[in-house]
Amino acid sequence: MPTLSEVARHAGVTPATVSNVLRNRGRVGATTRQRVLDAVEALGYRPHLAARALAEGRAPTLALMVSSIANPFYPEFALAVERAARTSGHFVIICNTNEDPLTGRAYLDQIAGTLSEGVLVTNANLDFVDLRATEARGTPVVLCMWERPAEPPGLPCVAVDFRLAGELAGQHLLELGHRRMGAIVGSKASGIHAARYEGFVDALRAAGVTKNRVRHAVDTIHGGYVAARAMLEADPQLTAIFSTNDLPALGAMHAAADLGLRVPDDLSVIGITDIELARESRPALTTVAVPTVEVAGLAVELLRELIESSYGQAGRGARDEPIPVPMRISSEPKLVVRASTAAPRPPAHTPSRSPSC
Amino acid sequence: MPTLSEVARHAGVTPATVSNVLRNRGRVGATTRQRVLDAVEALGYRPHLAARALAEGRAPTLALMVSSIANPFYPEFALAVERAARTSGHFVIICNTNEDPLTGRAYLDQIAGTLSEGVLVTNANLDFVDLRATEARGTPVVLCMWERPAEPPGLPCVAVDFRLAGELAGQHLLELGHRRMGAIVGSKASGIHAARYEGFVDALRAAGVTKNRVRHAVDTIHGGYVAARAMLEADPQLTAIFSTNDLPALGAMHAAADLGLRVPDDLSVIGITDIELARESRPALTTVAVPTVEVAGLAVELLRELIESSYGQAGRGARDEPIPVPMRISSEPKLVVRASTAAPRPPAHTPSRSPSC
Repeated sequence: MPTLSEVARHAGVTPATVSNVLRNRGRVGATTRQRVLDAVEALGYRPHLAARALAEGRAPTLALMVSSIANPFYPEFALAVERAARTSGHFVIICNTNEDPLTGRAYLDQIAGTLSEGVLVTNANLDFVDLRATEARGTPVVLCMWERPAEPPGLPCVAVDFRLAGELAGQHLLELGHRRMGAIVGSKASGIHAARYEGFVDALRAAGVTKNRVRHAVDTIHGGYVAARAMLEADPQLTAIFSTNDLPALGAMHAAADLGLRVPDDLSVIGITDIELARESRPALTTVAVPTVEVAGLAVELLRELIESSYGQAGRGARDEPIPVPMRISSEPKLVVRASTAAPRPPAHTPSRSPSC
Repeated sequence: MPTLSEVARHAGVTPATVSNVLRNRGRVGATTRQRVLDAVEALGYRPHLAARALAEGRAPTLALMVSSIANPFYPEFALAVERAARTSGHFVIICNTNEDPLTGRAYLDQIAGTLSEGVLVTNANLDFVDLRATEARGTPVVLCMWERPAEPPGLPCVAVDFRLAGELAGQHLLELGHRRMGAIVGSKASGIHAARYEGFVDALRAAGVTKNRVRHAVDTIHGGYVAARAMLEADPQLTAIFSTNDLPALGAMHAAADLGLRVPDDLSVIGITDIELARESRPALTTVAVPTVEVAGLAVELLRELIESSYGQAGRGARDEPIPVPMRISSEPKLVVRASTAAPRPPAHTPSRSPSC
């Protein structure tokens, strides 16, 4: 492949002039400009992205760290990120950490600041120490789905009010008349879904419902299946299950089916996120939709601003007054009512406790 | 970030020596080696992957071109590719073409040979002209899932006998006793799923079944839903539906549900691939499993060999005798019987055509 220098020689100009022409920078006369473009065409020169990136001290890709590419939410989110990134000519490197902070660190060490000029992080279970180290090396980091807008993480982020999402789910079930409910939390008690569950419990308390069953589960269809099945076997009188994510909610519907319960007649199920499978399941899943595409757009926009402003180098760790850590808040999650929720069936005649015999 | 030259200055050696130490190449005495490593640590130097790649005329990433990241098969395949690639220290850039050859060309132009040293192509609807151009520029290309081992594509590939997959699906339905069957083909008639459908038809013909319904559909759950619904409404006596892919098969099960048909009692459904959703649907989907992980491993292995051997530069388009285009063939697809197929229900008493009144 011909080099920039060869193009310059062929056109009888300096490499800097070639670069200016290709990047529409500097002042170059029309004749010289045409000579350069002719040389580019004659030699079949293609601007070398990596070389250009190096020359400018930056790389033209964004890295998207995801915790599990096999979880269908992440491809949907990656698609939205990619579309947003392509509008500024960025390519997206998807780095899949498989929930492993060490793999995440390896990606950050190898990719961030070399092949990519910025890092987008979904809930990838990454160590904040590693993320701050990446930032300190001059590569901006944006957390894409911070779950608690009221408690900023100390890193640039896009926040979604996930506590509200849980509250909306709880209110929906209450309005339908449910009082005996179970919750499947797709993380550890103190984990990333804690805010969602808090919102759910807040809604119940506000309505005077002070008790509900809860199980913590793996954030998959199968995880939800196992948790729902155990919960329904322990308490057959549950009339509704709230899940902090759509995948376990889908598993809860499978568990109901296997136990001979009809959704929504015998059991209502509601999730959070609104992944494509929520729309495509039978019955279609009622859920609280998160503005995924909007969040992707905000995250890419914020990351680009940080890259442009050299936030990483100048802001953090400098001795001057600290630059405030930016946080963008998405629009609010919204209830999407589909076919998996309904009013609870009126209780069957309860057998009398005092036998007549 | 400190440069290699600064490390060299700090250690009192040449940059070449630093490079040799970091790459375990050349002869460097133990004392010098330790001095270099001390300097690396003192300065916090990190080898600059992009710089090293440029210096060597190669980049440390592989590009994986997928036609639709939202199709759950591709994340599963990407995961397998990534695991295989990481064993050789490669990172994977996922390029999503959204079924658009022009987007594909843009990725090939921008990424191939600059940021990545090799390209893996799934069924990404890419123009072979563009792929050959990429190859001619010295960046090897491997097609990951070539559907017809008997008809090599003229590009390096991993082939899977998808005709056999269709045949196995047909044989399974025949063995259960089905004779009145429909087929959903997830591509145009001449499209990528043609071989799968041919295999199905071959199986039926071999058993003397010369007719079946067929519909071409979009390769999604919804596409399968629409096709199955139309087919079942046109011919309510169908007892089984074969789909060339799992996603439309899942849609066919939804269509059956909405028409009040039980799977498998009233309708058997079978797909091809064995994506995770096939295992997780209710009823679980019978399918012909494709060895996804094996194919990913073979594809990465072949691509690495081509990169090492400079296949792209030396082989194609040279005036010497042509190097044969390599093709690896995966192990055979295998039938996985789950809950969505069963013997057809014995026909209900058919109303007599000669009324007794």
